[in-house]
Amino acid sequence: MRTGEQSIAAFCDQLAAATPAPGGGAAAAVAGAMGASLVSMVGGLTRGREKFQAVEEEMAAAQEAGRRERDVLLALADEDQAAFNQVMAAFALPKSTPEEKAERQRAVQAAYQEATRTPLETMRHCLAVMRHALAVVEKGNQNAVSDGCVGFLLADAAFEGALWNVAINLGSIKDGAFLQEVLGEVARMRREREEVQQAFRGLAPDPVTRFLKQQ
Amino acid sequence: MRTGEQSIAAFCDQLAAATPAPGGGAAAAVAGAMGASLVSMVGGLTRGREKFQAVEEEMAAAQEAGRRERDVLLALADEDQAAFNQVMAAFALPKSTPEEKAERQRAVQAAYQEATRTPLETMRHCLAVMRHALAVVEKGNQNAVSDGCVGFLLADAAFEGALWNVAINLGSIKDGAFLQEVLGEVARMRREREEVQQAFRGLAPDPVTRFLKQQ
Repeated sequence: MRTGEQSIAAFCDQLAAATPAPGGGAAAAVAGAMGASLVSMVGGLTRGREKFQAVEEEMAAAQEAGRRERDVLLALADEDQAAFNQVMAAFALPKSTPEEKAERQRAVQAAYQEATRTPLETMRHCLAVMRHALAVVEKGNQNAVSDGCVGFLLADAAFEGALWNVAINLGSIKDGAFLQEVLGEVARMRREREEVQQAFRGLAPDPVTRFLKQQ
Repeated sequence: MRTGEQSIAAFCDQLAAATPAPGGGAAAAVAGAMGASLVSMVGGLTRGREKFQAVEEEMAAAQEAGRRERDVLLALADEDQAAFNQVMAAFALPKSTPEEKAERQRAVQAAYQEATRTPLETMRHCLAVMRHALAVVEKGNQNAVSDGCVGFLLADAAFEGALWNVAINLGSIKDGAFLQEVLGEVARMRREREEVQQAFRGLAPDPVTRFLKQQ
């Protein structure tokens, strides 16, 4: 059954089970999908109101992007589990002859690369969600600002969670060129994330102070 | 339908809808429940292994605590929506006579207090999840360390998300004693959270460096 079709309680049960999949990679993708959905929510609560006419297009874009990223992130939750199963299947290949050993080794390496690419893709999409969350927190309906902030925070945690799932595979990868490509992409995305985090902190430095000041 | 019984896709649809509930409060509680489930996972993958005999009791406690916190946090996702609906219902009360006005005002204030208590309770339980996540990351099966880390990160984001949902109500609360009590509790929990975050950063400073070193 696809992750999106499972009940939340059943998915939690599967996470909690003493089996390696689904695990943190899938949970991170689901958290990112919830973050994306909250971006859509705030976009939708902002659109079509006279007060927010100047940002109508941007809010429509955020609402639509949230829907799209949600779909991608739920699919990535499935892919994360499939990639893990592929690693397990590769390790189960026969290894009696030198040819079998070489084939098994190739399959294991291909599976580890796929298990690295999947959370890397999750990081990419969480970063997109964070950017759109920033837009709705800054320019959207302020009655829903806490929803935009939770959207940002969930996507941010999902980014770092997915990074752990990229990182845990790195020690097993033999292809130096692939490894360098991944490390470069990770470094680039982490820099981008820091910029977005700084912008968020600038907009939303402290929730308690912010709302007490309004009294 | 209870939040836990909903499919993940349906819950995301409801979050994404241009209606105020469910919103960030419920999404934060669900993220916390996923974090709690990952704590149980790592506890379960650690228990019953000779290598981890010395931490068997602690891991059993983490596994069980994860299950308990998951149930509580899924219930809090429901309560968050119920509390919001209560605020709306209070505002819909009649206000034609002075008596009605006073009664409506009392109901609105009671509803805001409940809508503040619910995410405050979510913060409390996310903090518990973070503590147990720290234990499984430090002492649990290191093959599942990324799962424990994602558990920590989701509970941490859920804590801050719930804080936004506490904060957004503060400006509407008139009872100074209640307000001071909430602010004291928030300050106490934020200090505790910083300690736990520092301990986590000490254990798990950088995923990329950690796993590349193992090569």
